Amino acid sequence: MAVEDVKLIGTWENPLVARARIALNLKGIEYEFLEEDPNKKSELLLKSNPVYKRFPVLIHGRKPICHSLLIIEYIDQVWSSSGFPILPADAYDRVTSHFWATYIDDTFITQIHVLMWNEDEKIKAGSKEKLFTALLLLEETFVKFSKGKSFFGGDTINLVDIALGSCINWLKAVEIMTGKNFLDKTKTPRLVEWAECFCSVEAAEKALPEVEKLVEYRKNFKAASGAAAVPSSN
Amino acid sequence: MAVEDVKLIGTWENPLVARARIALNLKGIEYEFLEEDPNKKSELLLKSNPVYKRFPVLIHGRKPICHSLLIIEYIDQVWSSSGFPILPADAYDRVTSHFWATYIDDTFITQIHVLMWNEDEKIKAGSKEKLFTALLLLEETFVKFSKGKSFFGGDTINLVDIALGSCINWLKAVEIMTGKNFLDKTKTPRLVEWAECFCSVEAAEKALPEVEKLVEYRKNFKAASGAAAVPSSN
Repeated sequence: MAVEDVKLIGTWENPLVARARIALNLKGIEYEFLEEDPNKKSELLLKSNPVYKRFPVLIHGRKPICHSLLIIEYIDQVWSSSGFPILPADAYDRVTSHFWATYIDDTFITQIHVLMWNEDEKIKAGSKEKLFTALLLLEETFVKFSKGKSFFGGDTINLVDIALGSCINWLKAVEIMTGKNFLDKTKTPRLVEWAECFCSVEAAEKALPEVEKLVEYRKNFKAASGAAAVPSSN
Repeated sequence: MAVEDVKLIGTWENPLVARARIALNLKGIEYEFLEEDPNKKSELLLKSNPVYKRFPVLIHGRKPICHSLLIIEYIDQVWSSSGFPILPADAYDRVTSHFWATYIDDTFITQIHVLMWNEDEKIKAGSKEKLFTALLLLEETFVKFSKGKSFFGGDTINLVDIALGSCINWLKAVEIMTGKNFLDKTKTPRLVEWAECFCSVEAAEKALPEVEKLVEYRKNFKAASGAAAVPSSN
């Protein structure tokens, strides 16, 4: 696949963009990263995703694909011969992976976004509780899925690994900003190991935004605009 | 497949439950409908969908599958030999179908729910606008997808047909309750034709709740509890 056939429109800090990059890296697909300003919506983005106007958008040939989880599914199907299946072939395992990836979107990402951007201490306290609850459930799910192996996908990275792993550095940034450990060796020991393992995989390492840069980004954003203009969670 | 192998937990009025029933009917799968009270959550539901505690849940053998769109995907893959494919085989067409089905969940169902249950006239006015906008976009999408044929899937019913079609009688109930035509021969002529065609298909006809019963249900609910306890949108 020539470089010009695959393009990804995204920003450096967006975990949903990181998802697409991890999937592309895992499959060994060369692509052009059309990096955009997180605080602007370019003409290309608006043209490529007119309905939601959100990052990321994968452009394969002339076809735009939107929504991070759908982009991963598309990549997995189109480059199925690469030898790194991201979605299981079995129907039940497949929908179960989708279920947990959607759960991560509904709860985990939502709470991280609140903790990162919301200034209301009461709302943030509620969000911390919800995040802890989600992590406990994900720990339990990890034990079931991984069967003693390193990833939700067992020996290999699957959709749930990418869905959660893409946000892991945001979680670390939130830990620094709030002074609270969410991934905890006592309460979520397997997820702590999983996070270390996931972040050390080259395909993820190359795609994840640096924790320090995320903390800096948040601080600068706050200094520049206060809490008035909060970025969208997706 | 023996009847006892496939069960569906759901309620009579829920459009998401209707989705699963339409897919099962299309594929000709015999199943036991475990009909529940819309205002209660049974032990079976809580055990089968402990994370979201929502209808519908498909139980295949001992495996519970949650989320209406995932249930359809599961049915389509497991009973792929039935001759009624619901999801396209092509990767791009497949994610595009998912994209529009998710759009219907995000916008269409959300607005119908507001119009049916919310008592605030200002919120309802905003919701009407959003519903009109969504219908215009879906009309445009239908023209692109159907290529002059009867369904979003062309000659056959696909995921988008089921996602939207499952809510069509709720839309008609909202039209009666609000005195406003949303599906309109001038603005959305192709969707008007599509709705007639979809509702006359036996698999849908057998699964959709009756419009008059929905209106009655809403009136009785209002009379019994006022606007205090509003059912969840999914």
